[in-house]
Amino acid sequence: MRGAVLYGARDVRFEERDAQTLIKPTDAIIRVSAACVCGSDLWPYRGISPVAQPTPMGHEYCGIVEEVGSAVTTIKPGQFVIGSFFASDNTCPNCQAGYQSSCQHREHVGGAQADLLRVPLADGTLVPTPHVPSEDLLPSLLTLSDVMGTGWFAAAAANVQPGMTVAVVGDGAVGLLGVLSARQMGAERIIAMSRHEPRQQLAREFGATDIVTERGDEGVERIKELTSGIGADAVLECVGTQESMMQAIRSTRPGGSVGYVGVPHGVELNGEQLFFSHIRLHGGPAPVRRFLPELIDLVWNGTINPGKVFDLTLPLDQAAEGYRAMDERRAIKTLLRP
Amino acid sequence: MRGAVLYGARDVRFEERDAQTLIKPTDAIIRVSAACVCGSDLWPYRGISPVAQPTPMGHEYCGIVEEVGSAVTTIKPGQFVIGSFFASDNTCPNCQAGYQSSCQHREHVGGAQADLLRVPLADGTLVPTPHVPSEDLLPSLLTLSDVMGTGWFAAAAANVQPGMTVAVVGDGAVGLLGVLSARQMGAERIIAMSRHEPRQQLAREFGATDIVTERGDEGVERIKELTSGIGADAVLECVGTQESMMQAIRSTRPGGSVGYVGVPHGVELNGEQLFFSHIRLHGGPAPVRRFLPELIDLVWNGTINPGKVFDLTLPLDQAAEGYRAMDERRAIKTLLRP
Repeated sequence: MRGAVLYGARDVRFEERDAQTLIKPTDAIIRVSAACVCGSDLWPYRGISPVAQPTPMGHEYCGIVEEVGSAVTTIKPGQFVIGSFFASDNTCPNCQAGYQSSCQHREHVGGAQADLLRVPLADGTLVPTPHVPSEDLLPSLLTLSDVMGTGWFAAAAANVQPGMTVAVVGDGAVGLLGVLSARQMGAERIIAMSRHEPRQQLAREFGATDIVTERGDEGVERIKELTSGIGADAVLECVGTQESMMQAIRSTRPGGSVGYVGVPHGVELNGEQLFFSHIRLHGGPAPVRRFLPELIDLVWNGTINPGKVFDLTLPLDQAAEGYRAMDERRAIKTLLRP
Repeated sequence: MRGAVLYGARDVRFEERDAQTLIKPTDAIIRVSAACVCGSDLWPYRGISPVAQPTPMGHEYCGIVEEVGSAVTTIKPGQFVIGSFFASDNTCPNCQAGYQSSCQHREHVGGAQADLLRVPLADGTLVPTPHVPSEDLLPSLLTLSDVMGTGWFAAAAANVQPGMTVAVVGDGAVGLLGVLSARQMGAERIIAMSRHEPRQQLAREFGATDIVTERGDEGVERIKELTSGIGADAVLECVGTQESMMQAIRSTRPGGSVGYVGVPHGVELNGEQLFFSHIRLHGGPAPVRRFLPELIDLVWNGTINPGKVFDLTLPLDQAAEGYRAMDERRAIKTLLRP
């Protein structure tokens, strides 16, 4: 089998890898129909996170089940399935509470930018679609594996309710799908914070009613101006820097909520400032598994089309170009077809 | 009129002060029936917060309305009223959302350890009882002005629901009334973290089912042992130090909530740690005004008796001894009678 492997900063190679095989009886092997490049893949790609050894890349995937271990009971070969970047048993107390990404037996899933992928805890992790989907549904179904589930969690964690005013910090794929999620959850007004024309357009297409191009203090001021001076009811933080986090907190009204899904890099929150902000804070790695059944339905019946975030599709053997395009911000998100 | 004035570290004097008079047409003057010493008064008393000038003390109060300004329409002389440490108009968007302690026109109320007290924004701030209460209800009604409202907010912010397992960090008066609040909200199991025998007893009286004496890592381990390894559904943080805050966060299950009401002193939260904890965080200065009508009912009909936190009652002219007793932890909380 072949797959994308990161050797070091800006060094992605498409090469022959050892075939994926069942290791535990709870594993499944799937033939990947589509994978993609995540914003978080750019941290090691850019050399900001160190790459200790050649690393098979990719954690967003959907595909056809090829083989299952002897203890797998619900997932069958031939099914089209979607899973999360965290494998979970879906039975432990944390899973039962809807926090499968904190599963007591969670395992990372990696190396999805390949022909074949081993998924641990297959019964708990994978969710099949009603039948094998047509080609046109593939991009949207693929987003449910991470980026759409993460945008959805941002909105859910920010407690978005019908009629609310919502602000979204970050115009990457997660932020854009946060806009779509807030719209789907009934937000009346959605303010997308973006200074990039093509992303503003997609934000509007997904349901943004206002665009704010300012950042930092000025961005906060603009949000306040748009919300009678008090701030938004819900703010989605989809970046993970100190600046974006403070922008989100300061843009939220007292009693309002920040849903944060950008993995924090060097973020420190001052307790006193947080205390007097009176906001609610919730977030973390998205429990994608919780949302998969509902989101598959919404894609399947055509209610949402999150696959629009893919503005570049490449054959898997051109994975390196997919990374370059995102690194240089020529592409919002790259879909890779084995 | 006479009142308690703080001159510097451990220097509380009971002395003649200028009479309180109406300053704005929205003010009321009340004759204080009972006041008390707050844990937060101990910060300046101990010299940890500087005392720039002689400062009239006290922000917890109830009493009889003596006089109202020309713009006051609902509060009448002769009524027995309770108010919060923050005056609020109760009409701005933040008040309407239930966050009166973030009122757009909020003002501090101070100098309540005195015969008379000026309360700004009287219509928005003060809530009358059905009639002038009997003496035995005074202590419990007084707690509603701050300490009980704050314990209640801790439980509300931690989203305590019937059947939940709740942990309370801090065995001061707020923590103890957090136990009472959690019980009143239907918590099934309430774990009080305390190493002081008399406070453990009161915690049990208020509804604690378990006592944990360990702190820090060991305290977190004990909570995990008591909760199938995952942590409590809701944790009330009632101290405000780095250690207590981290103890609260680490004692909470993924998807569970921390309600924090201890004013943070030097607290810094690491973004990445918070992210992977998967907890919800909400708190701040308690919007006491929101809870006053409900809590007055609960005291009035005898459902709750939060006044038990007062284990020392002194005439106002002995205020200095009231501070000393709390500073030396001889008293949980001191009630002062003018």
